Amino acid sequence: MSGAVSIAVDAMGGDRGAGLTVPAVCRLLSSDTDIRVLLVGVPGVVKPLLAKQSFPDHRLEFVSAAEVVGMDESPVDALRKKRDSSLRISVDLVREGRADALVSAGNTGALMATARFVLKTLPGIERPAIVSAIPAIGGHTHMLDLGASAGATPAQLVQFAVMGSVLAADIHQIRQPRVGLLNIGTEENKGNDVLREAGRLLKVGTLNYVGFVEGHDIMAGEVDVVVSDGFTGNVALKTMEGAVRMLLDTTREEVQRNWATRLLGLFSRPLFRAMAQRLDPRVYNGATLVGLNGVVIKSHGAADSVAFQNAIRTAAIEARKGVPDQIAELLARQTVLEAPV
Amino acid sequence: MSGAVSIAVDAMGGDRGAGLTVPAVCRLLSSDTDIRVLLVGVPGVVKPLLAKQSFPDHRLEFVSAAEVVGMDESPVDALRKKRDSSLRISVDLVREGRADALVSAGNTGALMATARFVLKTLPGIERPAIVSAIPAIGGHTHMLDLGASAGATPAQLVQFAVMGSVLAADIHQIRQPRVGLLNIGTEENKGNDVLREAGRLLKVGTLNYVGFVEGHDIMAGEVDVVVSDGFTGNVALKTMEGAVRMLLDTTREEVQRNWATRLLGLFSRPLFRAMAQRLDPRVYNGATLVGLNGVVIKSHGAADSVAFQNAIRTAAIEARKGVPDQIAELLARQTVLEAPV
Repeated sequence: MSGAVSIAVDAMGGDRGAGLTVPAVCRLLSSDTDIRVLLVGVPGVVKPLLAKQSFPDHRLEFVSAAEVVGMDESPVDALRKKRDSSLRISVDLVREGRADALVSAGNTGALMATARFVLKTLPGIERPAIVSAIPAIGGHTHMLDLGASAGATPAQLVQFAVMGSVLAADIHQIRQPRVGLLNIGTEENKGNDVLREAGRLLKVGTLNYVGFVEGHDIMAGEVDVVVSDGFTGNVALKTMEGAVRMLLDTTREEVQRNWATRLLGLFSRPLFRAMAQRLDPRVYNGATLVGLNGVVIKSHGAADSVAFQNAIRTAAIEARKGVPDQIAELLARQTVLEAPV
Repeated sequence: MSGAVSIAVDAMGGDRGAGLTVPAVCRLLSSDTDIRVLLVGVPGVVKPLLAKQSFPDHRLEFVSAAEVVGMDESPVDALRKKRDSSLRISVDLVREGRADALVSAGNTGALMATARFVLKTLPGIERPAIVSAIPAIGGHTHMLDLGASAGATPAQLVQFAVMGSVLAADIHQIRQPRVGLLNIGTEENKGNDVLREAGRLLKVGTLNYVGFVEGHDIMAGEVDVVVSDGFTGNVALKTMEGAVRMLLDTTREEVQRNWATRLLGLFSRPLFRAMAQRLDPRVYNGATLVGLNGVVIKSHGAADSVAFQNAIRTAAIEARKGVPDQIAELLARQTVLEAPV
């Protein structure tokens, strides 16, 4: 299989574990002939599931793991004590060069801690970040950091901007992605010292920096990359998810109001389904743990089979495009000056 | 008019100015017989508009102002140079005790700076906050600070919690409102030092503190008060508004897809209108500038007549309940210990 990209898949992660990941991988291998999968899991769990599936043998390799990292386990414990876990072995496969990327729907904190420890960050990147494509009017916005760390320095925000730009360009084929810095106003004096300094650094850099943006700009389609520290990004992402969920719940309630609305609801089902499809953040699956020496994709724990397959496809795209190398290169081209003390 | 509460209304503020506020006030006075209005505005603008309206004379007093604070004017300039503005005079009326509360749809920054300078903060309150009722499943969540200042100390977050509790109790008749602290996880070790310390202080206080909450909890109806610093709160609020707007836009787009969906859209109009009504943050009008020696309500600049009238009603409720006194009292009852250095 010349040209095929190898993806390590943690079969044990996610709310539904191997029962979801194994059939999803087999389905993906049948449709995407340029992907190989190293399926990492506990033999007693994965092998019986594999036996029930048909798949192209030569593009699936089973890799045995002895244990599983729990969804609520502490990242430190997972890193120290579970060296034979499917999560750890998946990361190791990338470090050893046997896999070009990895996908896990497991414990996010453990995945981040393990990937950071094993793969290390790229030269010039102080901290990895979590980035995801958020649905926006007319397309998507790449948003980061979504919670890898709780704060960020001006230099780290610039690093996030570089990483977001590379991903937006590679995954959504956007030339010179427009980068915005999340703030509470668009005027240059808004926000705090960290944001004002980051804005100054981005202005003199080579990215397509458009300035400060506000919460309502994230989904408005006016920028391709929204940069913030992990605390703010995490609050914004979860608030967005909450608003979408509340709207869908409210619609369901309004539909139940009387016989006329119920009838309307029945006829409107395809419409609601189309909307949910476009807007539920879970269908845009595959957050990237970016800034590492390797491609690491975190699938949503509640992802269904289609979403999980999309996470593997995202991993394949990033591996083929060489996202880590591109980030290191673009970062080197920034004229990032340290803030004067 | 014994028992009537007096509200100073800045007639000149808002996107549509006196053209909206004057008829709104006249309509309100006809329906709410226990409210008096001191209508503050430029005579040449307001008087011709008043002449076209019918209203109960004895409950409307016109107060003349010489100038108007622009919507984009700097708060410092407004405070220093526009002492005869309708905004400043409205605040002065509260300080002088001639009005029990004030409502303005004008420049938020100018209103905050002026109210803080003229009325001063309550004893024990270091900084005022902006609080608003956000639509949530089953009711509302009072959220603060929405952007009065960019950061907050643990003690200030506790002060916000006290102010939010009083408002939730008074405006939505909630006994012992459930208070949550906005964070990026619910475990006690999540977030940053400021949040962890604020959590510790709230735990030993007398409020009904339920712990850390996340972005998706704001609209979920599980808490009555969500506390955060002004930066985080402002980002969350605007992100929510953006998500709701994006969903409504997307629905409109989906409806235009073909003749069947267009027909469906036609029949669904009452449904969509009901949803928009429930969810558009603008219809829950009247953010309170809380923590001041006086009741100050900021109406949304884009508020329509109904929303502007609701802002005046909110002002009347807060004045009658004596929100500022209640806050001072409840604050005194907190056993807020300073963070050990």
